Amino acid sequence: MIFSADDKRYMRRAIELAYQGRFTTTPNPNVGCVLVKEGQIIGEGFHQQAGTPHAEVHALAAAGDNAQGATAYVTLEPCSHTGRTGPCAGALIKAKVAKVICAMQDPNPQVSGRGMKMLAEAGIEVASGLLGDEAEKLNLGFLKRMRIGRPYVTCKLAASLDGKTALANGESKWITGPEARKDVQLFRAQHCAILSGADTVLVDDAKLNVRLDDTQLAEYVLPEVRQPLRVILDSRYRLTPDLALFQQPGEILLVRSRTASVTRKELDKQPLWPNNVTELLCEGLENGQVNLDALLAELAQRDINSVWLEAGATLAGAMAQQQLIDSYIVYIAPKLMGSDAKGLLTMGPFTAMTQVPTLHFSDMTPVGEDIRLTLEQLRVE
Amino acid sequence: MIFSADDKRYMRRAIELAYQGRFTTTPNPNVGCVLVKEGQIIGEGFHQQAGTPHAEVHALAAAGDNAQGATAYVTLEPCSHTGRTGPCAGALIKAKVAKVICAMQDPNPQVSGRGMKMLAEAGIEVASGLLGDEAEKLNLGFLKRMRIGRPYVTCKLAASLDGKTALANGESKWITGPEARKDVQLFRAQHCAILSGADTVLVDDAKLNVRLDDTQLAEYVLPEVRQPLRVILDSRYRLTPDLALFQQPGEILLVRSRTASVTRKELDKQPLWPNNVTELLCEGLENGQVNLDALLAELAQRDINSVWLEAGATLAGAMAQQQLIDSYIVYIAPKLMGSDAKGLLTMGPFTAMTQVPTLHFSDMTPVGEDIRLTLEQLRVE
Repeated sequence: MIFSADDKRYMRRAIELAYQGRFTTTPNPNVGCVLVKEGQIIGEGFHQQAGTPHAEVHALAAAGDNAQGATAYVTLEPCSHTGRTGPCAGALIKAKVAKVICAMQDPNPQVSGRGMKMLAEAGIEVASGLLGDEAEKLNLGFLKRMRIGRPYVTCKLAASLDGKTALANGESKWITGPEARKDVQLFRAQHCAILSGADTVLVDDAKLNVRLDDTQLAEYVLPEVRQPLRVILDSRYRLTPDLALFQQPGEILLVRSRTASVTRKELDKQPLWPNNVTELLCEGLENGQVNLDALLAELAQRDINSVWLEAGATLAGAMAQQQLIDSYIVYIAPKLMGSDAKGLLTMGPFTAMTQVPTLHFSDMTPVGEDIRLTLEQLRVE
Repeated sequence: MIFSADDKRYMRRAIELAYQGRFTTTPNPNVGCVLVKEGQIIGEGFHQQAGTPHAEVHALAAAGDNAQGATAYVTLEPCSHTGRTGPCAGALIKAKVAKVICAMQDPNPQVSGRGMKMLAEAGIEVASGLLGDEAEKLNLGFLKRMRIGRPYVTCKLAASLDGKTALANGESKWITGPEARKDVQLFRAQHCAILSGADTVLVDDAKLNVRLDDTQLAEYVLPEVRQPLRVILDSRYRLTPDLALFQQPGEILLVRSRTASVTRKELDKQPLWPNNVTELLCEGLENGQVNLDALLAELAQRDINSVWLEAGATLAGAMAQQQLIDSYIVYIAPKLMGSDAKGLLTMGPFTAMTQVPTLHFSDMTPVGEDIRLTLEQLRVE
């Protein structure tokens, strides 16, 4: 199927619409839809939040009876199953659109080509693959979860030019500037979960929640900020309910390793946790640590599409070494902290350059006085 | 004095011309000149090499008798003294130009306003300060040497994303890709001297000379590549004439500290060095190391405008800690080398973030699979 320049323009608009849902659609994908008739856009829509109407339904509502004979541009194959809302393929058939062009098929096993089939069987012309690569980027997390049962993991790092995160005495406030720290909030807001360790919570009394300022809130489509699930590794039961982490709105998942050696006494002195805290006893390794891949599988089971890893050198290093990180957001401050300062990632040792994890730079942007580098894990195809 | 848009355009052209001399004018500054009459460029020129005509002379030769009544745009105040060539101010007077606009005054004590004065006294209209900041960048080295008797020092670093330069076992070939390594050659070619230490020479059998490929040579205005002076710290007399360093064309300065403890026996076994090697006994510190600031002063005395520091963590760290570096060119490879790999700079310890050297990002550019960051030392004004 050959797509025209107009087709591309409409699909690009649908992608732009879909992007507006990035803070709030979880665990659903971001989807945008544009309805076009006689060269005019007659309806647009995007999915805002799970349990509310899908993109196609918004666009059809905007178009009304005029939808008959129109072409629908959708960034993801319309659904064929009845979830909390009816199937979109059915709605498109009912509205008598003439043609449906999708950017990509939905790998959700409940859809997976069935939406396209439903439409085709109803006599609607269907096509797929228009700007598929761009549409893929809208839903890296959802798609990875559907395909392999794991969330997409992005690791946030912040360091000086010489790769250090704190002075030998622990001082680290602040390496990066206020703009970089503000930028982090926008990333947190776009993830389903924030993953960290007890150390980070204890050392910084970190809240690890989303705090958006007014400018950032202007991009938000819903009145209230969705707080990502905060997933904290605490196999040694060191966290206590008085910490700032627990005083913020939003759910917390405390993860304990099944294999960690914990005394009866430590367990007995466990406090009563507030209602927003859930404990998860996760598969562990021989060394007592949490099996991180098993944890990611468990998070995917809990409908977590994307994980923002914002942790210390030990947890971030373990995730990196086990190749569990899909992309990196690295803030670099124009400072030199010296050789005895603390390093970015506890990992290795490697004995040959061929063993070294190799990434790919996909973006670099100045953020205040600092710079932000984006890298992606290179996958062996 | 208010400059017009045309004035700016002509000066910008003069700066562009001056830039063509960047590989070869040392120890002279890069200078460009444009002669304009009745809205037409009637002559252009730039300085190519010390001992050959200056920019103004080239431009005047191109204009011929037509230069009478013209306006000269010069990126640096015309010289007033007779060096290997006659004074340019005199040549402009003789050609009867009507007006001379300079980007900036020449801080060279032999000029320093005298060129402007000579022109004014001859009845020529003179003005200065047009695009002075841009012209300043043409000659960071020359200007620093003239002003404070030190060369401008640029430190080249190359590291993985986690700030490492070699694995624990020393393996480091290659962290950065071929494009970054090729890029380095262009920087080396633009510097008067390359500064390094005996360790770098011994470990890598480094040549530290300029090796340009055909594309890079296309930018070169002279048929033969000028090899920068290679300045190597070797207070412990570890280098030997069989090393690759000594087999390349170009001068070498071997620097020994006066305070280093060297046995009679070590001195006695010193080899006969080839003709391109000079030894310098430099002021030393109590710990036996070379006094790096004294070395830089000595290099300036030897007409070295700019130094490309390409050394290991010890020398680069010492230079950084002593704030002797003006700018940094940092190549970052998209790799993670692990916590036991070798660090970028041996410096510190710092006990408060306020002590930490703070730089300023001035550029970032992708170079092959790597990125190149440019930073400048922040100076307290």
